[in-house]
Amino acid sequence: MSAVKKIAVLTSGGDSQGMNAALRAVVRSALYHGIEIFGIQRGYQGLLNNDIFSMDLRSVGDIIQRGGTVLQSARCKEFYTEEGQRKGAEILRNYGIEGLVVIGGDGSYQGANKLSKLGINTMGLPGTIDNDISFTDYTIGFDTAVGVVVDAINKLRDTMSSHERASVVEVMGRHCGDIALHAGLASGAETILVPEVPYDLGEVAQRMTHNFAMGKRHSIIVVAEGAGKGDDIASELARHSSQIDARVTVLGHIQRGGTPTPFDRNLASRLGDFAVRSLIRGESDKACGIIKGELVLTDIDKVVNTKNKFDNEMYELALRLSQ
Amino acid sequence: MSAVKKIAVLTSGGDSQGMNAALRAVVRSALYHGIEIFGIQRGYQGLLNNDIFSMDLRSVGDIIQRGGTVLQSARCKEFYTEEGQRKGAEILRNYGIEGLVVIGGDGSYQGANKLSKLGINTMGLPGTIDNDISFTDYTIGFDTAVGVVVDAINKLRDTMSSHERASVVEVMGRHCGDIALHAGLASGAETILVPEVPYDLGEVAQRMTHNFAMGKRHSIIVVAEGAGKGDDIASELARHSSQIDARVTVLGHIQRGGTPTPFDRNLASRLGDFAVRSLIRGESDKACGIIKGELVLTDIDKVVNTKNKFDNEMYELALRLSQ
Amino acid sequence: MSAVKKIAVLTSGGDSQGMNAALRAVVRSALYHGIEIFGIQRGYQGLLNNDIFSMDLRSVGDIIQRGGTVLQSARCKEFYTEEGQRKGAEILRNYGIEGLVVIGGDGSYQGANKLSKLGINTMGLPGTIDNDISFTDYTIGFDTAVGVVVDAINKLRDTMSSHERASVVEVMGRHCGDIALHAGLASGAETILVPEVPYDLGEVAQRMTHNFAMGKRHSIIVVAEGAGKGDDIASELARHSSQIDARVTVLGHIQRGGTPTPFDRNLASRLGDFAVRSLIRGESDKACGIIKGELVLTDIDKVVNTKNKFDNEMYELALRLSQ
Amino acid sequence: MSAVKKIAVLTSGGDSQGMNAALRAVVRSALYHGIEIFGIQRGYQGLLNNDIFSMDLRSVGDIIQRGGTVLQSARCKEFYTEEGQRKGAEILRNYGIEGLVVIGGDGSYQGANKLSKLGINTMGLPGTIDNDISFTDYTIGFDTAVGVVVDAINKLRDTMSSHERASVVEVMGRHCGDIALHAGLASGAETILVPEVPYDLGEVAQRMTHNFAMGKRHSIIVVAEGAGKGDDIASELARHSSQIDARVTVLGHIQRGGTPTPFDRNLASRLGDFAVRSLIRGESDKACGIIKGELVLTDIDKVVNTKNKFDNEMYELALRLSQ
Repeated sequence: MSAVKKIAVLTSGGDSQGMNAALRAVVRSALYHGIEIFGIQRGYQGLLNNDIFSMDLRSVGDIIQRGGTVLQSARCKEFYTEEGQRKGAEILRNYGIEGLVVIGGDGSYQGANKLSKLGINTMGLPGTIDNDISFTDYTIGFDTAVGVVVDAINKLRDTMSSHERASVVEVMGRHCGDIALHAGLASGAETILVPEVPYDLGEVAQRMTHNFAMGKRHSIIVVAEGAGKGDDIASELARHSSQIDARVTVLGHIQRGGTPTPFDRNLASRLGDFAVRSLIRGESDKACGIIKGELVLTDIDKVVNTKNKFDNEMYELALRLSQ
Repeated sequence: MSAVKKIAVLTSGGDSQGMNAALRAVVRSALYHGIEIFGIQRGYQGLLNNDIFSMDLRSVGDIIQRGGTVLQSARCKEFYTEEGQRKGAEILRNYGIEGLVVIGGDGSYQGANKLSKLGINTMGLPGTIDNDISFTDYTIGFDTAVGVVVDAINKLRDTMSSHERASVVEVMGRHCGDIALHAGLASGAETILVPEVPYDLGEVAQRMTHNFAMGKRHSIIVVAEGAGKGDDIASELARHSSQIDARVTVLGHIQRGGTPTPFDRNLASRLGDFAVRSLIRGESDKACGIIKGELVLTDIDKVVNTKNKFDNEMYELALRLSQ
Repeated sequence: MSAVKKIAVLTSGGDSQGMNAALRAVVRSALYHGIEIFGIQRGYQGLLNNDIFSMDLRSVGDIIQRGGTVLQSARCKEFYTEEGQRKGAEILRNYGIEGLVVIGGDGSYQGANKLSKLGINTMGLPGTIDNDISFTDYTIGFDTAVGVVVDAINKLRDTMSSHERASVVEVMGRHCGDIALHAGLASGAETILVPEVPYDLGEVAQRMTHNFAMGKRHSIIVVAEGAGKGDDIASELARHSSQIDARVTVLGHIQRGGTPTPFDRNLASRLGDFAVRSLIRGESDKACGIIKGELVLTDIDKVVNTKNKFDNEMYELALRLSQ
Repeated sequence: MSAVKKIAVLTSGGDSQGMNAALRAVVRSALYHGIEIFGIQRGYQGLLNNDIFSMDLRSVGDIIQRGGTVLQSARCKEFYTEEGQRKGAEILRNYGIEGLVVIGGDGSYQGANKLSKLGINTMGLPGTIDNDISFTDYTIGFDTAVGVVVDAINKLRDTMSSHERASVVEVMGRHCGDIALHAGLASGAETILVPEVPYDLGEVAQRMTHNFAMGKRHSIIVVAEGAGKGDDIASELARHSSQIDARVTVLGHIQRGGTPTPFDRNLASRLGDFAVRSLIRGESDKACGIIKGELVLTDIDKVVNTKNKFDNEMYELALRLSQ
């Protein structure tokens, strides 16, 4: 039986597929270890609103396969203030809650960091589709989001091949091109534009014209939102070559939805359980991650202040194979 | 053995899922009846370019499940001219081709109509996702397109529920709201905006605010492109109520893609076979359709000059059930 | 406002996809018409157990897309007896329930028929994947089940083509070959074995050997369970030709699962609403169906005593096109 | 430009999803490096039949998303003999082929090992859904196969919950329980039976009865074929408790099919490229794998003689979380 008696869990920031699987793992792992577990509705806002309730085994039944988060999420300006943070810590203490698992992205991690300084033991779980968190190879939801993008590109490919047209697909990723890269390689996209690599649309246009001349029936350009707007890319390509008449698709929020892949469910399950076990061991102010297959803890401070690495090798491979 | 000896088939206009299944049915039904069958690449443009080739049983093997059209499609300005049409008829006659099956939408039907006046027996098959062709209850591709939209809305619902947000989804349908209607009813959308029914966004905003107050966690507005731009709808809703912060998704060309549903494959198979059998019977200048489960022929002229009916009863049902 | 004040709904027999959509339509349509609506858990068994509860708009929120039935289903021997039926009618009367909507298959309809004779107004909705109910062109769940089968056959085709092998796929349908027929046509199966059409496996074996010789890379035999066991078919084919080494797949209960297609959701929604409106109009002892696009009522007696018709034309088309 | 001038590629053994993506990577990487590349149809049998042909960029166009293998596969008894192996090596030499990439499982690797001893440089790529190859964390196809199983279990869960029934799902894995483990964890299966862990069905039956009593509406038992037949498991469970009436589903060959996941496509792409680059560097008789995110080479001998490790920690996690 653990020395820790009560912990809570919340989801915060943009939702991602697999958050429910992580939640299930946190709840069941806590109960398995004899710890009382509380859910906080609507993230930090719910915390400040005392929207806290006890959870049991059945609270997380039949949710492993659902997108979104049953605990919901919300933005909370008040929690950015020191006063808000103090209030949050106090509310948790009133419940006797000693540990908090926060599932979310960078912003959510910073809240956990603040709470830990106010005496609440915290654990961060990387719940975001962008894969833009450092010290973890994968974030929860990334694999599913890539799947949604690849599925959409497959659909576009059908119709683009029928008309011998180019297609610009704008995907999520403000600072991180991982969705574009992984989906681009997997779907055989000819061009992948990411914030991490400078590009020249004149060259892109030239290669496209060349490829069509060589018999390619379609040309797919995947662009991370951080590297440019789909519409702008298409019009600039048209300026470079009158032959290029690219259709633009902005995938938007459907990338956050859908049933999580087994990969994401299992990643979420392992990380959720790991977070609870880490709290039991007395850890705090840490981000849980998976690096080269191993579960690891890293100081939240370090995680939010380190830029995620981009896989240049995979990027070059994608270009090499999409000739 | 049929008196008709040689027929050809082409796909034209925007592609739709199930065109390949229709093509397979045309080819195999022709061969079954002892008729030589030719494929024309890239629609009417390919016809004018003599891009015509003989097809056999294996030419359409393993395509029933594929989106797009292996014969490809293209726009062709030249074919709008009388000269182009004469040239097309002559080319067909040079091959000894007496009948032509055209798979496509309204514009494609008009081409078939012109050719029939120049002595080529023609049959139109309704290949378009919009369901905007009269004298057929369903067009080939419509059921699949509705499925793509409903799948996307399911994904949006996950994430919208997590944030208690509204979502505006713009779908295809310039003059016909059928995709919006069928997808809206199937996904439990609260609001469906179509070109056929006038609407008042003030009322919509009021109902949305009311529903959120009553505990609904999401609100989905499906809008056919012919009824308004998604972005415009969202900003006008925000003007009406400051509480409404709707995310916009424009589904675009992914609606044309994906493996056709069994419904579309079977519809395409039945219609393709019916077109060939009708040509054998000496019919010409007809559109093939399915009305109340029965295969029917209608004069192309009548089809292109009659507006498709909108199902008001289903529309009202959708609103009644999405409270 | 309706003269009917209270109605109830139950699901019975094997579940099917779209039952939840039907349930949602019944509940919301009733509430829209100012009628109190009760749910009965676990079919007729739940009725006898007084497992009855009041439902509101939110009771059926977020279920339109879910497989199975939130009301659950169960077999109930007691309800086969006159005593059980009387007890059921009495329990309903104790609640003041004047009308009952039963969603299920033939057996469930018979229960409704008995109750109607005991003074309860009843409506049957065709909820079964087999499409084996007469006086309706489609049952709720059939379109989805066909989709599950076609998806599985697509997967088998990948691997069978890679090994140039034959595949026997056993699907549901004890007395009705509709799943086999529609899935067989849609997936280009070379052979479709159904209870309605006698067959000769010697001929099948001959055609398969011929087709492989002609360059076909796979051969798919879809068999409805009522026409034979997959394993038996495979071994008899092997007896007829030593070249045929067919793999057997029994799809089983996965055919009942999965998110309902838009077609099934919309069919269920229309039928559910129709059932409620029919009860309001004072109808009883009727099965709701859709025939040639029109909603129709038929005496339950007539429905359970009429054999469903098989579409021989479609059957022959499937064979003609799968050469 | 590489010293190696000509290489060939074949797929062998049971096919797996992602083989086509691997093939595409091998072909395009070879061409990128200025190497002539040959495809061998139908595995080692095709090699002995001289079924060898030159491939170019377009040979592998539009295949990245397809299940199965366009090069097909076949068993070949002749190649088990020394004479067959010599003949194979000679044929390759006649073409001037110096290196061979073999995509397949253990048996396929052994063939590559033999050829390397006869002077052909060989590389093995782990193409099998079972994840039963040592010195690689993942085989190509495994992630997709797990997805197929999880999708099927989701469908079963719908219907099992509706009837409060147990479900036994037999999945692939003769010596390796990885599919059962990963799919079991991802789908929240209560029981996972694998060849690596002894089990007691009496205990399983007891836990199931307990869980139903505690309000669980379904119970899913995933069993790897190497740990027992689904039917046997179900009848033994029924012997232990008369309350347990489990339905059995044998997923069979559909596990090999379907479009590969992005994960499998990217794994295949990286490994395919790595195999070519390794041949260029003069390596031979090696299996390519991915261990903790890094691409690694291991002697084929060592790979085929080492048993794959089972992840006991993940196994225990799955049980812990499925209460």
